[in-house]
Amino acid sequence: MSKLVVLLTMSLDGFVAGPNRSPGHGLGEHGGPHLFDWYFSGKEPHPRFSAFKPEGANMLVMDKRFGEVGAILAGRNTYENARGWNGTHPINAVPIVVLTHEAPKEPPRGFSQMIFVNDLTRAIAEAKVLAGGKTVAITGTSVAQQCLRAGYVDELWLTIVPLVLGDGKRLFDGIGDDAIPLEKIEVVDGPHATHVTYRVPHGGHG
Amino acid sequence: MSKLVVLLTMSLDGFVAGPNRSPGHGLGEHGGPHLFDWYFSGKEPHPRFSAFKPEGANMLVMDKRFGEVGAILAGRNTYENARGWNGTHPINAVPIVVLTHEAPKEPPRGFSQMIFVNDLTRAIAEAKVLAGGKTVAITGTSVAQQCLRAGYVDELWLTIVPLVLGDGKRLFDGIGDDAIPLEKIEVVDGPHATHVTYRVPHGGHG
Repeated sequence: MSKLVVLLTMSLDGFVAGPNRSPGHGLGEHGGPHLFDWYFSGKEPHPRFSAFKPEGANMLVMDKRFGEVGAILAGRNTYENARGWNGTHPINAVPIVVLTHEAPKEPPRGFSQMIFVNDLTRAIAEAKVLAGGKTVAITGTSVAQQCLRAGYVDELWLTIVPLVLGDGKRLFDGIGDDAIPLEKIEVVDGPHATHVTYRVPHGGHG
Repeated sequence: MSKLVVLLTMSLDGFVAGPNRSPGHGLGEHGGPHLFDWYFSGKEPHPRFSAFKPEGANMLVMDKRFGEVGAILAGRNTYENARGWNGTHPINAVPIVVLTHEAPKEPPRGFSQMIFVNDLTRAIAEAKVLAGGKTVAITGTSVAQQCLRAGYVDELWLTIVPLVLGDGKRLFDGIGDDAIPLEKIEVVDGPHATHVTYRVPHGGHG
């Protein structure tokens, strides 16, 4: 059975984007774009994910994480951002399920496969089928929050960067008031980034 | 010159306490008390800080961090909690400066030295004198926020625990909307706790 994981980068104070996000500016303003500095601090493009230039241990983590992903579950913002990337998502070999009530009329170009679904549980089910036994990575914050609130998330694959944003979009927001105890699986420290992996012990009950 | 550092434990979502804090229940409710589980997961009391039973790498971090502390700068809550600990702060060999407008009429007992100051910059100055060249550790959240907002903090000595609280008191709240870029100094992963140390490059300008 495919795992459902949250794959996101956040600041030390828990923001996955600065304020004032807009299409093409998915990381917002006021320091938000620096969240992704660690993806580009190296000298050479990643051999497989050439949109990125990860450095040192960051490359090992990217290899491992991206390598396990069989499908992406994203929100409308990820789709809008991908359009800014000339229609090609950086993990461009895997299918993407976009949870949205506003599917574009014109089919997107440059993706191997992208489908639009307007219901969360159906989006998860479709993504798991497309993943073919590999992991489904949630890369949209609002989708991640809906899945956390519903108890569907199996693991958190987060990267914490040395930045306090003070404002913007928080990952852990609107997920209910109940504490969620986690099990730490792994911590890998890389240049300008600390990669933390947790299991959600009661996750996956969807 | 003494460094001013923030020494706190927070959940993955940035809470240093759960909701509904009260004297004697400084970590609040709804999972808040689990923030400090890592302090007590070992079998033996720490030889020097016997209120704690840290395990594995957690003990090494505690040795290093507590060993560098020459004075504590705390808020009224820390004082109230310390009363719950029979008047003895766990780092009981160092003087404590309490920032409060409500100094107790009865002098506290069980502390080597505790002074009450109602002005932030004077509290910092007094703590630095008392620290005698060693580090001043801020252990109160509101004091930490005031110092972060004013740009007085030199380093963050945080412990991130595998817990999402969802509600409570956030460390990074009310510190202004400007992003604060940090320099990562060290990450040490221990049982049920990840210890992260950052420099605030423009800190210490008080």
